[in-house]
Amino acid sequence: MNCPDQPGIIAVITDFITVNGGNIMYLDQYVDKANGIFYMRVEWDLDGFIIPKEKISDYFNTLYAKRYELMYSLKFSSQKQRMAIFVSKMSHCLYDILARVVAGEWDVEVPVIISNHPDMEKVARQFGIRYEVFHITKDNKEQMEAAEMALLRELNVDFIVLARYMQVLSSDFISHYPHHIINIHHSFLPAFVGAKPYHAAYDRGVKLIGATSHYVTTDLDAGPIIEQDITRITHKDTIDDLVKKGRDLEKIVLSRAVEKHIQRKILTYNNKTVVFS
Amino acid sequence: MNCPDQPGIIAVITDFITVNGGNIMYLDQYVDKANGIFYMRVEWDLDGFIIPKEKISDYFNTLYAKRYELMYSLKFSSQKQRMAIFVSKMSHCLYDILARVVAGEWDVEVPVIISNHPDMEKVARQFGIRYEVFHITKDNKEQMEAAEMALLRELNVDFIVLARYMQVLSSDFISHYPHHIINIHHSFLPAFVGAKPYHAAYDRGVKLIGATSHYVTTDLDAGPIIEQDITRITHKDTIDDLVKKGRDLEKIVLSRAVEKHIQRKILTYNNKTVVFS
Amino acid sequence: MNCPDQPGIIAVITDFITVNGGNIMYLDQYVDKANGIFYMRVEWDLDGFIIPKEKISDYFNTLYAKRYELMYSLKFSSQKQRMAIFVSKMSHCLYDILARVVAGEWDVEVPVIISNHPDMEKVARQFGIRYEVFHITKDNKEQMEAAEMALLRELNVDFIVLARYMQVLSSDFISHYPHHIINIHHSFLPAFVGAKPYHAAYDRGVKLIGATSHYVTTDLDAGPIIEQDITRITHKDTIDDLVKKGRDLEKIVLSRAVEKHIQRKILTYNNKTVVFS
Amino acid sequence: MNCPDQPGIIAVITDFITVNGGNIMYLDQYVDKANGIFYMRVEWDLDGFIIPKEKISDYFNTLYAKRYELMYSLKFSSQKQRMAIFVSKMSHCLYDILARVVAGEWDVEVPVIISNHPDMEKVARQFGIRYEVFHITKDNKEQMEAAEMALLRELNVDFIVLARYMQVLSSDFISHYPHHIINIHHSFLPAFVGAKPYHAAYDRGVKLIGATSHYVTTDLDAGPIIEQDITRITHKDTIDDLVKKGRDLEKIVLSRAVEKHIQRKILTYNNKTVVFS
Repeated sequence: MNCPDQPGIIAVITDFITVNGGNIMYLDQYVDKANGIFYMRVEWDLDGFIIPKEKISDYFNTLYAKRYELMYSLKFSSQKQRMAIFVSKMSHCLYDILARVVAGEWDVEVPVIISNHPDMEKVARQFGIRYEVFHITKDNKEQMEAAEMALLRELNVDFIVLARYMQVLSSDFISHYPHHIINIHHSFLPAFVGAKPYHAAYDRGVKLIGATSHYVTTDLDAGPIIEQDITRITHKDTIDDLVKKGRDLEKIVLSRAVEKHIQRKILTYNNKTVVFS
Repeated sequence: MNCPDQPGIIAVITDFITVNGGNIMYLDQYVDKANGIFYMRVEWDLDGFIIPKEKISDYFNTLYAKRYELMYSLKFSSQKQRMAIFVSKMSHCLYDILARVVAGEWDVEVPVIISNHPDMEKVARQFGIRYEVFHITKDNKEQMEAAEMALLRELNVDFIVLARYMQVLSSDFISHYPHHIINIHHSFLPAFVGAKPYHAAYDRGVKLIGATSHYVTTDLDAGPIIEQDITRITHKDTIDDLVKKGRDLEKIVLSRAVEKHIQRKILTYNNKTVVFS
Repeated sequence: MNCPDQPGIIAVITDFITVNGGNIMYLDQYVDKANGIFYMRVEWDLDGFIIPKEKISDYFNTLYAKRYELMYSLKFSSQKQRMAIFVSKMSHCLYDILARVVAGEWDVEVPVIISNHPDMEKVARQFGIRYEVFHITKDNKEQMEAAEMALLRELNVDFIVLARYMQVLSSDFISHYPHHIINIHHSFLPAFVGAKPYHAAYDRGVKLIGATSHYVTTDLDAGPIIEQDITRITHKDTIDDLVKKGRDLEKIVLSRAVEKHIQRKILTYNNKTVVFS
Repeated sequence: MNCPDQPGIIAVITDFITVNGGNIMYLDQYVDKANGIFYMRVEWDLDGFIIPKEKISDYFNTLYAKRYELMYSLKFSSQKQRMAIFVSKMSHCLYDILARVVAGEWDVEVPVIISNHPDMEKVARQFGIRYEVFHITKDNKEQMEAAEMALLRELNVDFIVLARYMQVLSSDFISHYPHHIINIHHSFLPAFVGAKPYHAAYDRGVKLIGATSHYVTTDLDAGPIIEQDITRITHKDTIDDLVKKGRDLEKIVLSRAVEKHIQRKILTYNNKTVVFS
């Protein structure tokens, strides 16, 4: 939740929970003083909470939301999220994600993997996951994306991970998943926006390469950044070395972001993220 | 403050502050679930707070401390802390600290630099700080430390920073400054406890060297760790290279710890630290 | 190769290669001045090299090896190495390795995965790799290891990767694969040798956790270190959090070491490694 | 030195040194295969070298330079370099550099500190170094820079370090010190070129901030990068926090670059650097 910063807001909310029999399991808050905004994330145990699950939202609206100009989102951890993965021809991010899913690290389901190429079908098959190819061209993009969205709706997909998906999504597509499409870009944004960032990094002679996971917005590579990391390179590294070293960065940075999203620990505001620990 | 974890404790404390006219500037809390302990750090503005400064402690004791088995420490930011620096022959940590002090980065005073060697007097003089040499030998250690403590008391020193001070303090000395002596050890503790850690690191063939700042306890290099960091080395690095690379680590890691201490952001418990951000 | 450090040794070797029509593709060298040892790694193209492949060793021995007290190892990159993976119940390192193998990142074959538990058979099956369980107990260890070694010989295995294999190998077993068994230990060695390093790290209150890949020797967790890395933790992290954060470290650190081994870029000497870039 | 890559070039050069009685102390080389350029750095002991010091260049030219299209630079370690420091109002980089100089870490002399403000005179005085203020305005820039250059010539300054000097140097000035002016820019270039990079980083919501040391060229913040590093930030960090965290980065990254320059371990080519270890 977020609201204009005001005295006593933490006391009000924690009081609401504890007075009604909820046991707070997690609380983290943050005040953006520059903009006067208060952010908070609270988790509590519903066992013994006297307000029925389906009425919490109603009560909360009446009692607090309007009064404190409070924007919030209420989620139940029993509700397992459904994630679609979009890939092109590279497997490293895909394997990293699927290995975590089958090991039970993440509380998530993967009903489908979508691609513009057939190459990764063999990986999908290894994990017994449906694989759908949509051959997108300049001419058929609109229909293809419509078909993709129909499939995603049919499969009740909550959010999308672009695991090195080398196709730009249309504004229309993106608008259906606001802050619910996670991309990995292979540079430390905002450096090297766009295509071939490792080539650009090599040409500029940087001593670090990076990777950035962010929510996709209609502005290319300019959405809210979730996580970034870098690795050191030297003059000895060729472009191929950068690509190779970058792969480990990309998969780890993307998986960290996906994990935070699954745990609902990311709030977005003003094209930035608040990522709770 | 810390207390046994219990429902509603945040609400109770934040309520106490806001109801009485205090504006909360900072709140961070942490629950150690394994041990059932609740930790919190709150800062509030005393302007408009209706309880007089000198009575806050009294009120807080009566109303909350016993009831919630709450241990706390109340400090006023107007009260500038006084720091003594102990050095031997190396200047890198000393310069790093003094450069921050004169630049006004830290809200602290340095009434004295104490050493077992005359070497660093020239640095003390550059900064106009009193420099006292105590030539400690096996035979005179007790008297010398007594003299040091008398001087520290006289100068109202609140805490001590060992900026690569190569002399082991006695248990008696340490007991006068519980969790108020900050040391920098040039290894990633608990690896390479004791003398010559860079030599030990070289002999073991590690690929990373580290530095650890910690509160000094009577157990050598085993006090609560405040901050650690590492740097990468290779087979090409000689012991001299480790010493050189280590210097940058040591000074930064020590200064980070000192800064957190000055900001009163470190709580200690069970020989560990809670370091608030 | 390594030999006592002596003037002109680089000129001698590079001359031998170029005069006989070899084109040097890679040369890296390092002088351990403390011990007076010279290390070098050279790769050259055999196209146009006038000494036949099978006689190079003979010529090199006669002309240089004795004269310069030179120890060397000659390998042909056309010769693909065969790697066995040992696992127990955890999949993260195993997936990371297999994902790289099937993506063609490494020039290596994996004829078998060996375990003391059946759990990872499903992963082996996903990748179509033979999986053999050896239920090792205190009583049958000798026979079981003998059977393992027989299988490894039969499959022409060159080296072994312990991908979180939770069983201590006997000295006899280890002696058959000197510096050809790579282990991942989940601490920054030499801190937290032995069992349950994350628990020990938690108890000590460190601010960094690490992972170390090393060659296995008969001394537990004390073999030559190949690669190490760390990640930052805070007081908020529980033991479960350390285990989770550690997984990403372990897999990356192990895979980096395996890659260097496959590329034959690791020389060992005096229980340390020279790792060429 | 660098030259077109060609077979046997290492053997030729090392032979020249050893045959004439020189003992090689250091050799590192690198082949840029993409551009077919060979780079090498060799250090040898002149004791026993049969070619007199002042004739080495002549011999080398005749025997090798033209034949192999070899560009080289010959320096004697007995020749101490002279460094000028340019500062504005911030002291952190300046103190870090001066602390290293007086501790004898670097083989360098600092005859002068130059500034456009009087603020840092007190630091210069602490270290007994001449301090000259040149109040540069739009109108007097040409004369002022001429005066600065006259002073630098008079003091035999070899290279210049811009220790957070907040004034853009003219192309003419820069052209007199090609690849001999080292700047620290407070971002991970090429992100956030120009003024106020911490503000830009804050606005973009990055999760890492960086610092970059580079040689100054006439293209703003676009010269050859020598060294970069980053530090992690979170949504909690204000612009002031970035500035504070950035200071430690800036001083360490700048000092690493200056050290490499003093050790003559940096070769430049095609607006990039080869930095030998």
